Amino acid sequence: MRPKPLSGFPEFLPSGRMVEQAVLDSLRESFELHGFASVETRAVETMDSLTRKGEIDKEVYVVRRLHASGSDADELGLHFDLTVPFARYVLENSGHLHFPFRRYQIQKVWRGERPQEGRYREFVQADIDIVGENTLAAHHDVEVALVMIEALGRLHDDLGIPPIVMHVNNRLLAEGFYRGLGVEDHMAVLQRVDKLAKIGPAAVQRLLVDELGMDADAAATCLQLATITSEDTAFVEQVRALGVQHPLLDAGLDALAAVVEAAAIAAPGRLVADLAIARGLDYYTGTVYETQMEGFEHLGSICSGGRYDALASDGKKTYPGVGISVGVTRVLAPLIARGELAASRSVPTCVLVAVDAEETRGDAMATAARLRARGIPTEVAPKADKFGRQIRYADRRGIPYVWFSDSTVKDIRSGEQVPADADTWTPPAADLRPGVIAGSAQ
Amino acid sequence: MRPKPLSGFPEFLPSGRMVEQAVLDSLRESFELHGFASVETRAVETMDSLTRKGEIDKEVYVVRRLHASGSDADELGLHFDLTVPFARYVLENSGHLHFPFRRYQIQKVWRGERPQEGRYREFVQADIDIVGENTLAAHHDVEVALVMIEALGRLHDDLGIPPIVMHVNNRLLAEGFYRGLGVEDHMAVLQRVDKLAKIGPAAVQRLLVDELGMDADAAATCLQLATITSEDTAFVEQVRALGVQHPLLDAGLDALAAVVEAAAIAAPGRLVADLAIARGLDYYTGTVYETQMEGFEHLGSICSGGRYDALASDGKKTYPGVGISVGVTRVLAPLIARGELAASRSVPTCVLVAVDAEETRGDAMATAARLRARGIPTEVAPKADKFGRQIRYADRRGIPYVWFSDSTVKDIRSGEQVPADADTWTPPAADLRPGVIAGSAQ
Repeated sequence: MRPKPLSGFPEFLPSGRMVEQAVLDSLRESFELHGFASVETRAVETMDSLTRKGEIDKEVYVVRRLHASGSDADELGLHFDLTVPFARYVLENSGHLHFPFRRYQIQKVWRGERPQEGRYREFVQADIDIVGENTLAAHHDVEVALVMIEALGRLHDDLGIPPIVMHVNNRLLAEGFYRGLGVEDHMAVLQRVDKLAKIGPAAVQRLLVDELGMDADAAATCLQLATITSEDTAFVEQVRALGVQHPLLDAGLDALAAVVEAAAIAAPGRLVADLAIARGLDYYTGTVYETQMEGFEHLGSICSGGRYDALASDGKKTYPGVGISVGVTRVLAPLIARGELAASRSVPTCVLVAVDAEETRGDAMATAARLRARGIPTEVAPKADKFGRQIRYADRRGIPYVWFSDSTVKDIRSGEQVPADADTWTPPAADLRPGVIAGSAQ
Repeated sequence: MRPKPLSGFPEFLPSGRMVEQAVLDSLRESFELHGFASVETRAVETMDSLTRKGEIDKEVYVVRRLHASGSDADELGLHFDLTVPFARYVLENSGHLHFPFRRYQIQKVWRGERPQEGRYREFVQADIDIVGENTLAAHHDVEVALVMIEALGRLHDDLGIPPIVMHVNNRLLAEGFYRGLGVEDHMAVLQRVDKLAKIGPAAVQRLLVDELGMDADAAATCLQLATITSEDTAFVEQVRALGVQHPLLDAGLDALAAVVEAAAIAAPGRLVADLAIARGLDYYTGTVYETQMEGFEHLGSICSGGRYDALASDGKKTYPGVGISVGVTRVLAPLIARGELAASRSVPTCVLVAVDAEETRGDAMATAARLRARGIPTEVAPKADKFGRQIRYADRRGIPYVWFSDSTVKDIRSGEQVPADADTWTPPAADLRPGVIAGSAQ
């Protein structure tokens, strides 16, 4: 009996896993080039820290020992993001870290949600955050956006991931605007405006009027704010034209303009001010980011984040932070499932060394060792079969070369067979390792 | 209030994490050079598959959704090794895999055991396995041992992990020997002999006589068998000298001799026949491996495995396998905690670009981009502080170079400052990325 997959727990075949590895390697390279250090935290946190702030919308998986006894009653759960664990890590290790502390973290997270395309119960996230001690300069809000845009741009250029556009807003801007309109509970407005894409402007307007008692004009003005987008700082004038005044609004406009201006220089066309972005109920306090992948807008945001005034606090010090997280599985699982991304072969092997007879397997092993010593991934054929069968073994796996004991090597794609020395022969660079093929429906 | 670490869930500071990354990169490189493809499986398996075969000694963590309803009653647990998930993966995907299938798998596993040095509740394992369809040639027993010895040798040569010796035995050898002595329940003998290192020969002798009713001579002969070790095939004669005869004993001696002979050529001194190795209650059916790390014998085996006649079976086909698993955390956590291994700096950054004034941050960002474009990890200083303070920022993190806007670069270790062009300047290769320093108690 063949076991069935668990819904919401995607697993890749070797070819898909190679694509994932290439993506994770590329992200790591991008993050390290910008000086982010890797952190990995345990998979479990105390239930107490996972359920704080009423994050009940992120369904937590509880973990307990099968043979747990009363004395071992620590309630644990699997982390549902990498921000809560990182905040705890910063507090726990603050005496050993240098601030501002820049870290990236690439790990699986778990949420007990209803699975659908782009939404899983187990998935990989790749986060970058910069955390300060008591203060953190505003230019880091620009920096994390640019680092992530560069990282996603590299995935596009090198691996064929679709292009992205990052949408940025600032919570102060919205808060100031709503306060300028005389609203007390600005979060209540934000939560309703956040439903714009889902339920449309007319429905949001009704919610604002019926549930919050706003007058129709003020509600309409809130909706007008949410329609403003611009690739440059044109949004500032458009907001001003709505005639609302508040110091927080000014602060938010300035902060967002700074991000947009810097991005227009460093990554033209990749970042837009989008005053509809609210980031749901997450507790950001300034800049907020969401990201759409071209052609995959139905997946929702594939890369989100923002600034927290206090990522963590130990009572004496606070640790403000700003960060962004890519949903790696959300991006990859649909692309791999549709055959949009695949590896050029299903094994790392570049050369298969044929075996003439089981008695000479040692010779084949010695040849393979010479090739590996120069970084060429090499396998020895598992059976001293007819050469046709050994070649078929390579062909099925996409291994491009077969090496024979008469010191010849055959490119099994072209059929060309040439004399070669295992201490000097080198395959073309493109054949050395499996590559990622985009757009193939292979 | 500072949160406290969870006992048994080790986490590294950035320097320790860099050591771990270097080790995992090296293992991956070794495995891929031998043509093993990466597989990653979900963290959870059904409780049914985790508790099969009475593996109750590996304490399982049960996982359930906080808001689970009756209809969602799949009982899940965290995997306690990578073998059970891999066996399930092979069955689930057998139609898409090519056999013999070679895979490596590097993931966290969880066991609810009592934590101590080298024994954790969450830890990383790195496994290689080769799985056949219905049959799997004996030479793969040699191969996985040699691949792992090579991989651990590379960790020693490149990163300063202590040297290892792999101890190999064969279950058929012991079974044949016990049967040749007239024993029916050979597993019962094996389980008691397995306690040799823990309780000593006299106590094992008593168990064999008192619990299994063996006569004293036969029990003594079993103990004599368990004392035999050799770096070459000398063990064969020593076993023969005990005068026991059985066809399974012959098969086991031949199989073990083949492994020892091949290893004596490919990895002299790194593999010994050790007839005391039993691998506890694990269900191996042929070759078994354990590995000691020099100076850390108290950790127990850091790398173990063996051959299964049927890693998995779907009723129609069986999938015999042979594999070995390194306990990466078991090796690293003690070495890192004792300061035996550390990274040469706590950040990937090679160059810090100084900022003259906040107004010129854009220029510093442009310089940094030019350096990064050539693969040099670069940060821009977080604050337009006095240069002394910016240099201190670099110094605290071990960043070797500071770049100034007058196009000079300073090696802050020597104090030497030279003119440089951001499009051509290249640091010495040893400074480009953090390295691993062994033997430092840093």
